[in-house]
Amino acid sequence: MDYIRDAWYVASWSHEIGDQPVRITIMSEDIVLFRSNGEVITAMEDRCPHRSLPLSKGKVLNNSIQCGYHGMTFGLDGNCIRIPGQNIIPDSAYVRTYPIHEEYNIIWIWMGDKKKANTKDIFKLPQFDDPTWKPHQGDALYIKSNYLNVAENLVDPAHVSFVHPTTLGNPESEDVKVEVDTSGDVITAWRWIRDAPPVGFFQSFGNFSGNVDRWHYYYLYMPSIAVIDFGSAPRHLRITDEERHKGVRVFAIHLLTPVSETECIDRWMHLRNIQIEDDQVGDSMDAMFRVAFSEDKEILEAIQEEELRPRTRNPVRLAIDKAPNIYRLRVRKLAASQQDYIEN
Amino acid sequence: MDYIRDAWYVASWSHEIGDQPVRITIMSEDIVLFRSNGEVITAMEDRCPHRSLPLSKGKVLNNSIQCGYHGMTFGLDGNCIRIPGQNIIPDSAYVRTYPIHEEYNIIWIWMGDKKKANTKDIFKLPQFDDPTWKPHQGDALYIKSNYLNVAENLVDPAHVSFVHPTTLGNPESEDVKVEVDTSGDVITAWRWIRDAPPVGFFQSFGNFSGNVDRWHYYYLYMPSIAVIDFGSAPRHLRITDEERHKGVRVFAIHLLTPVSETECIDRWMHLRNIQIEDDQVGDSMDAMFRVAFSEDKEILEAIQEEELRPRTRNPVRLAIDKAPNIYRLRVRKLAASQQDYIEN
Amino acid sequence: MDYIRDAWYVASWSHEIGDQPVRITIMSEDIVLFRSNGEVITAMEDRCPHRSLPLSKGKVLNNSIQCGYHGMTFGLDGNCIRIPGQNIIPDSAYVRTYPIHEEYNIIWIWMGDKKKANTKDIFKLPQFDDPTWKPHQGDALYIKSNYLNVAENLVDPAHVSFVHPTTLGNPESEDVKVEVDTSGDVITAWRWIRDAPPVGFFQSFGNFSGNVDRWHYYYLYMPSIAVIDFGSAPRHLRITDEERHKGVRVFAIHLLTPVSETECIDRWMHLRNIQIEDDQVGDSMDAMFRVAFSEDKEILEAIQEEELRPRTRNPVRLAIDKAPNIYRLRVRKLAASQQDYIEN
Repeated sequence: MDYIRDAWYVASWSHEIGDQPVRITIMSEDIVLFRSNGEVITAMEDRCPHRSLPLSKGKVLNNSIQCGYHGMTFGLDGNCIRIPGQNIIPDSAYVRTYPIHEEYNIIWIWMGDKKKANTKDIFKLPQFDDPTWKPHQGDALYIKSNYLNVAENLVDPAHVSFVHPTTLGNPESEDVKVEVDTSGDVITAWRWIRDAPPVGFFQSFGNFSGNVDRWHYYYLYMPSIAVIDFGSAPRHLRITDEERHKGVRVFAIHLLTPVSETECIDRWMHLRNIQIEDDQVGDSMDAMFRVAFSEDKEILEAIQEEELRPRTRNPVRLAIDKAPNIYRLRVRKLAASQQDYIEN
Repeated sequence: MDYIRDAWYVASWSHEIGDQPVRITIMSEDIVLFRSNGEVITAMEDRCPHRSLPLSKGKVLNNSIQCGYHGMTFGLDGNCIRIPGQNIIPDSAYVRTYPIHEEYNIIWIWMGDKKKANTKDIFKLPQFDDPTWKPHQGDALYIKSNYLNVAENLVDPAHVSFVHPTTLGNPESEDVKVEVDTSGDVITAWRWIRDAPPVGFFQSFGNFSGNVDRWHYYYLYMPSIAVIDFGSAPRHLRITDEERHKGVRVFAIHLLTPVSETECIDRWMHLRNIQIEDDQVGDSMDAMFRVAFSEDKEILEAIQEEELRPRTRNPVRLAIDKAPNIYRLRVRKLAASQQDYIEN
Repeated sequence: MDYIRDAWYVASWSHEIGDQPVRITIMSEDIVLFRSNGEVITAMEDRCPHRSLPLSKGKVLNNSIQCGYHGMTFGLDGNCIRIPGQNIIPDSAYVRTYPIHEEYNIIWIWMGDKKKANTKDIFKLPQFDDPTWKPHQGDALYIKSNYLNVAENLVDPAHVSFVHPTTLGNPESEDVKVEVDTSGDVITAWRWIRDAPPVGFFQSFGNFSGNVDRWHYYYLYMPSIAVIDFGSAPRHLRITDEERHKGVRVFAIHLLTPVSETECIDRWMHLRNIQIEDDQVGDSMDAMFRVAFSEDKEILEAIQEEELRPRTRNPVRLAIDKAPNIYRLRVRKLAASQQDYIEN
């Protein structure tokens, strides 16, 4: 599996972590997350170096965590500070820790070389701080699929017509070509479907009376974050790319965390430029996204199962695969360029 | 696993396939079955050549099936006829298809070299068309056992006394020797148990007042179809092999489909020469067969589990193994003689 | 896995085996246990040498067991005595048997070289026959852990303060050093916690009004039997090692049977020197032990899971590991010294 180690991943939504230790798994590494003194988040290797009991089976104390087997206690820097019944603490008595950053109710973790961890590199949209936009946190969707297939799905406008017929797509878009721009760091794929009836999502949230112009812009950030800017505007406005703010516009954000070679978590949230005072609207959008993303999940999990079986043919490549192909190539290159980093 | 590829297998009972696509698995190959226009059955490789989504997750259209991911559409011959958003269809855009034949409410599939597929080779009994006999379809019994052990069980009269004490056997047959004829294409094993009380099955369906002569003839057709001709007649008739039609006579037919190295499906049906107008009798026989065949299933699944464990001793061979041994040898030879056939 | 073959293990509590055959698994060997004529216990290889059906799927007859497939019947010495429909019994028609001994409602089995099986070597405490002590059988606790980790846990007084805070330990013992004696065949580890409040167990069963002196002595017998002698006495008595009989004293006995490389059964029982006439007391102690031993089970199963994952670091060794380390070494040596014994 191609993993990018030197990157910030979402470890958790903020509300998922309290004073009880929680095990998470990223790139097959088991990590315990906890808040000590109800505040600072710490992320540690989830395995006591003595008998290998997960520390998540232990107890959070003030500024430390205690193993549930023999009481070995580790400070927030990972170093052992107490061995019950023994005065000398050997140098080998420590656990690895991971850089953590919490902002916008998201807990980020750095999985690579600590010296390279820089919180300025953490993904953020200008709209997070813009009062004319309303951010809304969705779910942590577990998908039994490698994260690369999920990321590719998020830079693939063409699947929408077939996978999400009642929410995000409709037949009018089936044969519309996909545009792609891979010149920058962010891979972009998009389509405009002009002069067509609104899809289910905008029937619910757009209040349109006639045909609309609809856009889907997919922005894929390395290694595995996608922003899908989609919206609709009445046909008579004939809006351009630059005028998307004049329509009903929603950003669906997917923050992918690779769990193992065949599992990932898709934490999704959205921002909208309409009815930003009405909390009920965010919940209703959640409901519609849950329908759509469970459709993706079903497809992606079926494909993961197939990929575990023997394959006798090379896959057919289509024009719509351009952005996913570029993404896969960049991941491969980046993964190869990063020494397999293990700190002990 | 010794698989015979050039053969007709039962893919399904007719009533199992409608206009929704259905995945079946034969010899570890996943196949999608569907009726288009409510009629013709098609069998295709169940994997889109683009991203590997099973086509059984897609939609049946008129004379085609559409992938549920990006809408690639395949005609009944397996060739791609549409790629949404793209005009050119590459030569590699096809899926393998399988010859199919439907008759007597059974859907047959040919797993080998298409050039050798001949519907005249499909198994059929003269009694299927004989108005003095009543055919009756039973179940599709899934057994977690390789198909060879199940087939061997179907040319093995000796197990009946011990495995089916309440239905098909009783203690009187325990020590009766098994006769075997392996001179023809069909391996035959049989026993007569003369002058004994009727077994459970014929207590229910025979209306006998005293002892009976009972026969069990097992006919095993290559590669994995068995006909068990069994019946009883009042002792005083002293009927011979040739006079079986004078007794209460039932044919239990087992159509075995290998699913994987450790799984198969036993589709069973039966024909009877008594009370052929009374549908209730067929259902009652079903009920009794379900008892008996679930006893076989339990035995065969336990043996499959044992065969997956390490073995330190060679099995003891008994006289009753003659027919099974010949069968196993023929399968091995036939499998070896068929080039491992893969069409792509 | 280091298995000691030449040893007596507990196959079962007496009450677990009646006239129905029961499959047990020891060191990955499947064994059928049954009583014939309602009395003598027999232990046999649980696999018919003909078609590998487990004999535990068959029927117990007088002084024999009959295979459920074709009726092959084996006497209590494992030799085949009947093959239905066949007069000659080949020499290869036998199953392996295991020496068995039943005493104190425990069924013991010898897994190694039969010539070395001696019932005098079976574990027994003098208190089993002492009328001032009351023995009481507990459960057969299945643990998804190799037996070695469980045995080590049973010669490890230090975990009690952290794993069993409500029953067998309390914080007063956290920093008390562990004493170890490995000079004899039985590895011994112990601690005295003097002048401390009674733990949960002795709050329930001791009727103490003030502080107590508490002891935990762990005796580990090869290959996998532990006796934990623990108790409490009022502080003012200031009792010594030799005066433990003056306190409230309980022996918790753990009889470990290795099932596979990752599973074992811990059959536990206890003896007490108080309220020996009151059966209710034994049941109440059971309830408290069940709480404690399920805490061990949770820890040990989590560790087993960790041990199946890749490990990048050597474990940290602590002073409290002395007895477990010696035990592990002795097992390794003993296992290596015993030729891998297979009788067929």
